[in-house]
Amino acid sequence: MTRTRSSGPALAVVGATGAVGSVLLQMLSLRADVWGEIRLIASARSAGRMLVVRAEETEVIALTEDAFDGLGPGDIALFLTPADISARWAPVVTARGTVVIDLSAAFREDLEVPLVVPEVNGHAVRIRPRGIVAGPDCVTATMIAALGALHSEYALRDLVVSSYQAASAAGRAGSETLRRQQSLVAGTSLGEQPGDVRRAVGEDTGPFAAPLALNVVPWSGELRADGWSSHELAVRGETRRILQLEQLPVSVTCVQVPVLTGHSLTVRARFEREVEAAHAREILEAAPGVVLVDDPAAGEFPTPVDAAGTDPAWVGRVRVSLDDPYALEFFVCADNLRKGAALNAAQIAELIAGEFA
Amino acid sequence: MTRTRSSGPALAVVGATGAVGSVLLQMLSLRADVWGEIRLIASARSAGRMLVVRAEETEVIALTEDAFDGLGPGDIALFLTPADISARWAPVVTARGTVVIDLSAAFREDLEVPLVVPEVNGHAVRIRPRGIVAGPDCVTATMIAALGALHSEYALRDLVVSSYQAASAAGRAGSETLRRQQSLVAGTSLGEQPGDVRRAVGEDTGPFAAPLALNVVPWSGELRADGWSSHELAVRGETRRILQLEQLPVSVTCVQVPVLTGHSLTVRARFEREVEAAHAREILEAAPGVVLVDDPAAGEFPTPVDAAGTDPAWVGRVRVSLDDPYALEFFVCADNLRKGAALNAAQIAELIAGEFA
Repeated sequence: MTRTRSSGPALAVVGATGAVGSVLLQMLSLRADVWGEIRLIASARSAGRMLVVRAEETEVIALTEDAFDGLGPGDIALFLTPADISARWAPVVTARGTVVIDLSAAFREDLEVPLVVPEVNGHAVRIRPRGIVAGPDCVTATMIAALGALHSEYALRDLVVSSYQAASAAGRAGSETLRRQQSLVAGTSLGEQPGDVRRAVGEDTGPFAAPLALNVVPWSGELRADGWSSHELAVRGETRRILQLEQLPVSVTCVQVPVLTGHSLTVRARFEREVEAAHAREILEAAPGVVLVDDPAAGEFPTPVDAAGTDPAWVGRVRVSLDDPYALEFFVCADNLRKGAALNAAQIAELIAGEFA
Repeated sequence: MTRTRSSGPALAVVGATGAVGSVLLQMLSLRADVWGEIRLIASARSAGRMLVVRAEETEVIALTEDAFDGLGPGDIALFLTPADISARWAPVVTARGTVVIDLSAAFREDLEVPLVVPEVNGHAVRIRPRGIVAGPDCVTATMIAALGALHSEYALRDLVVSSYQAASAAGRAGSETLRRQQSLVAGTSLGEQPGDVRRAVGEDTGPFAAPLALNVVPWSGELRADGWSSHELAVRGETRRILQLEQLPVSVTCVQVPVLTGHSLTVRARFEREVEAAHAREILEAAPGVVLVDDPAAGEFPTPVDAAGTDPAWVGRVRVSLDDPYALEFFVCADNLRKGAALNAAQIAELIAGEFA
């Protein structure tokens, strides 16, 4: 049974077979269906695979010039690809008048490419001189809806963030590495003696800079000047761009933890105006894309295993600093494959499709 | 072959059979031996067990008034016990003139009980009006040697700390809970769907407020006013006491992670004086009880599986804030059973034994 798909823009998904692609295809099957054709594109290695989207078996085609045949103005291509692939292929697509939404770092610092989280700066999608819209890094995306809502009320003055990042943000290789290591250390007394986890896990730490099972790894990205990592600088730069606070002091420490899906962050935000905890909770409760889970007496606080598989950012542990009535502390978790990637891309695509309607 | 132990103070170890007790007994066998008798005391349930200390099988005796017979001035009792046991029994021991070193929270806020980390304020052991010396919480102990050294040079102005706490800080029940949960989730695809880890792990989360395997849990301690946990307030209060900065602004978020042994912290410290990264590294390199592991280009940064089983605090990821030349960020790991507990207790005991020599 093939449905007719004459109406709605076409949507090309480039990188359809990856970890974010899988989640996106599930989402497209569940969200309001605004799309005509949905075309699945991936590397030549994955071409010919059949994937289900909107309950239909769909063949994956190889990423070549021909893959975009028939797409034009009014259509959209989502790039769920590494930055080098996005940089190479996005101009091929925009040359046809098709809008590109890219989730990689390729265009996030390009001032002619809006960096968009719909709950915070959805209006920014409309001005896209290069025909490209970027989504932020998954750590930025975890906190930005909550921060944006608080900033509107209190005016953000500075930010200190520590991350607890899930393995799946490094793609399938990340999840598989953690699963393999978890099996190697399960049911043992490993983790009590120096070097025992390193010996059990072996030299192959996959996409991580050290063993991840029973460990935390304070490194993510490439080394930049003065000991900072590219990932830490990206979160700083993106937060400034999305909130339009180009001088905002932001300190970030990126740390990988042995969690499969769901990034968590501790956030200490100082504001221009004095913060009242009950009012801050009201703001968070009303913020789009945020759920407040904040009753420690009842065991209610966000954790990544609860946030995994869900759309919103879960915020809890909201408290005003004891020594500074202008500072608020909170803890936030979100599914790094959803709000951190696929969901944000789908939301941006739907906003743009709305323009075309 | 029984050695003669006529010289040196007697050392009673109360709570000898617990997780910290085991580590302490290993340490007493390896460190310079300044002790006469070493007496092992535990709950009635553990009485009669034989434990090895200084290569001798030693019988564990039950915690009763009689357990302290023969101890007097010039002897020392280490309490590795919950706060209620320490509060009940420490006065029984000090009534004999024997000095108590307590690692629980029972006396940490008592201004007549010095709170001591030998690398930072070892001099404080000498003034102990109640005959009791306390050791700090394991989170405070993880960072305090590094912070103390930096404070001496730059004068600390405020502090933001996030923890990545190991399961063994909750004793054997903590380690066993994490091991059991690790076995239940190993080799599965759990951690990707809402609730799947909770269902696999079941209702029994042991000493933790939520499942710990493949998760992080932003809660530790009891609920206090305004959403703060007792553990967070303890780290704030103890840091102020040990550094003698009673008004220091300190923000702490305590988070449990699926690591067996080794607490990690991200620290953002602002100082009165401008910080230069290379000089800060020199200070940390020279600080007693600290090792600097800070060459990310070579994959060198601290992780808990490397710090577990070792004595010092491992410090790395040292960088000056990009937006504030008065602020330093770093990451620090230490074995919560050693520097966080047994090692600190042994060091305090040796300082006091030195007074008696």
